[in-house]
Amino acid sequence: MRIAIDAMGGDNAPEVTVEGGLAAAAEWKDTEIVLVGDQSRIEPLLEGKQVPANLTIRHASEVIDAEDEPVRAVRRKKDSSMVVAGRMVKEQEAHAMISAGNTGALMTTGLLVVGRMEGIERPALAPMIPTLDDLGVLALDLGANMDAKPEHLAQYAQMGSLYRQKVHNIAEPRVGLLNVGTEAGKGNELTKLAYPLLEQLPIRFVGNVEARDVLTGNCDVLVCDGFAGNILLKAMEGTAGAVFSLLKEQFTKSLKTKLAAAMLMPELRGLKGKLDYTEHGGAPLLGLGGLVVKSHGSADANAVKNAVRQARIALQNRLVESISKEISGK
Amino acid sequence: MRIAIDAMGGDNAPEVTVEGGLAAAAEWKDTEIVLVGDQSRIEPLLEGKQVPANLTIRHASEVIDAEDEPVRAVRRKKDSSMVVAGRMVKEQEAHAMISAGNTGALMTTGLLVVGRMEGIERPALAPMIPTLDDLGVLALDLGANMDAKPEHLAQYAQMGSLYRQKVHNIAEPRVGLLNVGTEAGKGNELTKLAYPLLEQLPIRFVGNVEARDVLTGNCDVLVCDGFAGNILLKAMEGTAGAVFSLLKEQFTKSLKTKLAAAMLMPELRGLKGKLDYTEHGGAPLLGLGGLVVKSHGSADANAVKNAVRQARIALQNRLVESISKEISGK
Repeated sequence: MRIAIDAMGGDNAPEVTVEGGLAAAAEWKDTEIVLVGDQSRIEPLLEGKQVPANLTIRHASEVIDAEDEPVRAVRRKKDSSMVVAGRMVKEQEAHAMISAGNTGALMTTGLLVVGRMEGIERPALAPMIPTLDDLGVLALDLGANMDAKPEHLAQYAQMGSLYRQKVHNIAEPRVGLLNVGTEAGKGNELTKLAYPLLEQLPIRFVGNVEARDVLTGNCDVLVCDGFAGNILLKAMEGTAGAVFSLLKEQFTKSLKTKLAAAMLMPELRGLKGKLDYTEHGGAPLLGLGGLVVKSHGSADANAVKNAVRQARIALQNRLVESISKEISGK
Repeated sequence: MRIAIDAMGGDNAPEVTVEGGLAAAAEWKDTEIVLVGDQSRIEPLLEGKQVPANLTIRHASEVIDAEDEPVRAVRRKKDSSMVVAGRMVKEQEAHAMISAGNTGALMTTGLLVVGRMEGIERPALAPMIPTLDDLGVLALDLGANMDAKPEHLAQYAQMGSLYRQKVHNIAEPRVGLLNVGTEAGKGNELTKLAYPLLEQLPIRFVGNVEARDVLTGNCDVLVCDGFAGNILLKAMEGTAGAVFSLLKEQFTKSLKTKLAAAMLMPELRGLKGKLDYTEHGGAPLLGLGGLVVKSHGSADANAVKNAVRQARIALQNRLVESISKEISGK
């Protein structure tokens, strides 16, 4: 199989994308890794390294930046590393693409370059949210579309369930609906209408899940519209961050607290890592005609390599074909 | 002025409502406190106590429970303490009512018994969310209505701004719109349409506020629909709770960690209180023809007294009249 990496995407590109690509190519000899990007910047990074035969470069002269307006950038920068990687997937020159670049632009590349899967109205971005049991929950949609209709939520549920089956090997993933109460009649217009649709699907629907229970990991897939998902994720991130900075403030108050905090440092570090959602690998963009994985903007080489690992598992288990079969019967 | 307390509402009623009412009547001699509820349960609690002349009982034979279906309960239990207190406000026998009872039933009492203010389409529940600077942010709507139209958000903004002015004495409250990004064009259909409406209001609109920044207290009033507000608040609550239970788990791991944690206990306790939203007093139900304040279900006597304090300030500063003037020009 062949996986294209947008070598120019992300805060630390191309250094970490090249390093991650090298590591992936060295580990998985059956996988061709194509680094897509500016040859003159990629090649020096390979100098003096052991370059495996299954690692190649595809030159692309342009770069989409974090500040670029997504739709305009994708339309105009036709030779950008991201768009070229997307075109490779579209034209089946690559089986998957990975990018740590501009999220909006990647979603636009998915829609306009790779293209939607037949029968899917809205592709969804599906990152893992960390949970206390360390298993995480796949949440979708997390920002590909702000508004959603009940039918979209039903498709998210199916796609998320298949992803957890195929990529994470969970036989019957528990699918929950993000809502304001656990009872069936609760919610806004959207979730009230989505509930009966989810009940009818061939998935293991476990009902409504309240925002305060997400961290306890009571479902494997959490379905929500992009707006609510963003509020959820950022509230969790902001609160965890705030608590840790409060702790730091309290713990540096006096010699006594500093001493005690030093004794607890290993435990505190482990705790922070537990709630760091950047550590949870790449987020697939589900519902496209090919496999697209979003790596975090601040991804390091290891995160890039992990995204390749994820893409390989998805490809080996024919994720895209399974979703297509489930949704459109084809 | 006269303030009716639903003496039977809340987890610890009527004990804490009676105690809180007694304390309020003792402190504010210019305020008549009316305890509304079952005389045979209230009177024994007053026995042997110094009962001020400004404390009276209004008998009500029924009680709305936490498990009651709100609309049905309010319609059927016409002699419940909550409905009687609402009727007193409607008929101007009382200037305000306070209840720690069933939230849904209280909102229904507000709508069906007290009645909406002219020109207000949707009354809103407006609790304080704790912030790191301890000043808190008034968030509305937090659950009175799950769905909202852009015009509703505009009314929430006006009502919230007036509340902060009149009750918290903030000259120009900063009003923010809960959204997925800080730029003006961000959001779902609702927030995109609400943004220009908020810009045109005679308030200090500070733009979009992301969920992760709410805790840092960058606005005094946070406007959102009831669904998004619920997701925000419960995500914050759940994450803070989870971090503290993780801390506890880590800190009881070994003798060393237990010792260190014991040294930090005063600091840890202060931290927990900082993020406990139950400590932040009563939440007004804004947009009604009279003043209704929701006290937390687990309110203690002090919380009940604080709700009286809040109601007094709102009445003294003619909050309801100000909102009416601003919204309908009357």
